[in-house]
Amino acid sequence: MKTPRDPHGVAPDKSEWALLLIDVINDFDFPEGPKLLRFALPAARRLVALKKRAHRAGVPAIYVNDNFGRWRSDFRKQVARCVDQKCPGSPIAKLLPPADDDYFVLKPKHSGFFSTSLDVLLSHLGARKLILTGFATDICVLFTADDAYMRDYQLSIPVDCSAAETAAAHRRACEHMKRFLKADIRPSAKLRFRAD
Amino acid sequence: MKTPRDPHGVAPDKSEWALLLIDVINDFDFPEGPKLLRFALPAARRLVALKKRAHRAGVPAIYVNDNFGRWRSDFRKQVARCVDQKCPGSPIAKLLPPADDDYFVLKPKHSGFFSTSLDVLLSHLGARKLILTGFATDICVLFTADDAYMRDYQLSIPVDCSAAETAAAHRRACEHMKRFLKADIRPSAKLRFRAD
Amino acid sequence: MKTPRDPHGVAPDKSEWALLLIDVINDFDFPEGPKLLRFALPAARRLVALKKRAHRAGVPAIYVNDNFGRWRSDFRKQVARCVDQKCPGSPIAKLLPPADDDYFVLKPKHSGFFSTSLDVLLSHLGARKLILTGFATDICVLFTADDAYMRDYQLSIPVDCSAAETAAAHRRACEHMKRFLKADIRPSAKLRFRAD
Amino acid sequence: MKTPRDPHGVAPDKSEWALLLIDVINDFDFPEGPKLLRFALPAARRLVALKKRAHRAGVPAIYVNDNFGRWRSDFRKQVARCVDQKCPGSPIAKLLPPADDDYFVLKPKHSGFFSTSLDVLLSHLGARKLILTGFATDICVLFTADDAYMRDYQLSIPVDCSAAETAAAHRRACEHMKRFLKADIRPSAKLRFRAD
Repeated sequence: MKTPRDPHGVAPDKSEWALLLIDVINDFDFPEGPKLLRFALPAARRLVALKKRAHRAGVPAIYVNDNFGRWRSDFRKQVARCVDQKCPGSPIAKLLPPADDDYFVLKPKHSGFFSTSLDVLLSHLGARKLILTGFATDICVLFTADDAYMRDYQLSIPVDCSAAETAAAHRRACEHMKRFLKADIRPSAKLRFRAD
Repeated sequence: MKTPRDPHGVAPDKSEWALLLIDVINDFDFPEGPKLLRFALPAARRLVALKKRAHRAGVPAIYVNDNFGRWRSDFRKQVARCVDQKCPGSPIAKLLPPADDDYFVLKPKHSGFFSTSLDVLLSHLGARKLILTGFATDICVLFTADDAYMRDYQLSIPVDCSAAETAAAHRRACEHMKRFLKADIRPSAKLRFRAD
Repeated sequence: MKTPRDPHGVAPDKSEWALLLIDVINDFDFPEGPKLLRFALPAARRLVALKKRAHRAGVPAIYVNDNFGRWRSDFRKQVARCVDQKCPGSPIAKLLPPADDDYFVLKPKHSGFFSTSLDVLLSHLGARKLILTGFATDICVLFTADDAYMRDYQLSIPVDCSAAETAAAHRRACEHMKRFLKADIRPSAKLRFRAD
Repeated sequence: MKTPRDPHGVAPDKSEWALLLIDVINDFDFPEGPKLLRFALPAARRLVALKKRAHRAGVPAIYVNDNFGRWRSDFRKQVARCVDQKCPGSPIAKLLPPADDDYFVLKPKHSGFFSTSLDVLLSHLGARKLILTGFATDICVLFTADDAYMRDYQLSIPVDCSAAETAAAHRRACEHMKRFLKADIRPSAKLRFRAD
């Protein structure tokens, strides 16, 4: 019911930048899980550091995650389950638990923009520059990056904060995003927020 | 991360019909709240009965609700708050608490289809016939109905399961939806599921 | 094919304002056509004057039109047919033929935003303030206005540049847009471009 | 204006399959044009044969093309210009001119689904199986394929009817679509319409 009040209600934080964590909360309980985990775990460790830096700089973190709850259970419950149940993905979920002031958007398919509120959330935040991280580089990160580019977002996709099943697949996806999406793929340590 | 598994994962229930409850979880804590509540409470009581019938008939219930949590807190937490905090909307939230097997979709604006996963969820369910209920008839119900019609859904909008601030506004919105959206607006007691 | 060139190519004109002409190119060859035409023709005459003023002020005109060609024939061909074939809508099409530098967007359903490029075009133009005109006030103008509002556009919908089948239906739709969409519905003569 | 008539109007042809020709009408007048043309011209010749077979089988052809007219000029005019003006892309435009009963959808960005009516058109046709062809394999064909997959279309992307700047880039994009989008990438001669 939206009549007389401003439909946007509580104003969210404003930030030109936003950090997207794509499918980091995941049980990794599928055949290719172990191969992906080998690369995903070190990437998650670097992402922990990047997320801290972003937080200090006032850059909001947005979990863009598969909707494991299938529109029936809540995200925080999904996080708790992923941490507790000792699934293959628990170590990553433990490294990167969403904080109370982190945002989350649940996606039904591969791209974070497809049939979700991500675009509206980013518009409310005033964010036009996105840092894309997570798994896997050549699937959900790639789909999300392609969609972000068509919506005119500027992209940073640090090469050390995402992962694929093989180093080659990861590298090729990064090259694609650098060339066709004009993404800055420098490692996270080189990433400068607020720079134009 | 979606590679090798079926992106749709656990198959949701299949149903040609779906019952949408629009903004029934709401604090009603705004200037026009009392006027709307006068009509909304009796409508909510009838909706309780309709929801029970739908449940027995295997028709899934989908809460299509404003995202009061602003992408930071979970829906079930919002429900608990709405029930507990004795806001003007508590009586309705108590009448219509979401069950564990109910679905929910959080919407950022007026229409349940705008920047949400509702269309994907309905497609998964195989639902083509929607029963629209909730508040207010001439705003969020109307916006959602218009969008549903453009997406070729068949609409039932029982005149006694939604409400607006005035009886006249409610009636006019129902007439609009009957005429331009070919909606069946007969009272809920006359509604027959599964009928073609 | 979009690789190395800027996908946006030729920069369109920039303008904070845009004038939308909704379904003005129409054969009006349906049962309610005569009723609607009685009100639509005077509205079209005022729209001619408004379009001239907009043009002088550098405000681009966008025809947002039903796709009569059904994805097989071009818009200008549709215009020519509507002008030449002496259909009931010819007088309006003759009054308001699209100029070479006018834009057009073909819509498959009622709202100008549904499954069209309108949002992308407006974003390229930099337009955030829309003047909505055309037919019918309580259907395609209303659907388009609702969608524009959810996308955070500021709306002017001059009461004398759109029309419905009855004066009452027209007035009610205008009231709805004034109240719920915060639209400025003052007559076209009072409309000031560039004002903030 | 859509009131009383069925908004869908003239029923388009029905077909489970649809053939998409992506950016085949293109001037190829950009730095990488010559490299791409070397591969695109042979692919276009095979596409001519495939389009004929599709036509005989009642499979509609849909041109999904960059909007060179920038929302100001018509597609058929763009085609004529591309054929006549002896641009690098003329030979392909001459090989594959749209017929009167072909459909066309103009796209503002890379994916044929982004801000276009393609999804609505395919829904009207009843098409669930898409044959994707055109240029370039690793950009607009890939973006369109990704989006089609998220919308649950079944994909055939014959390896000999699309092209990229290098054979390696073409092959990698085909492998990506085969693996992640479950696309059938067999050569066009092996493609069987109507098969389930």
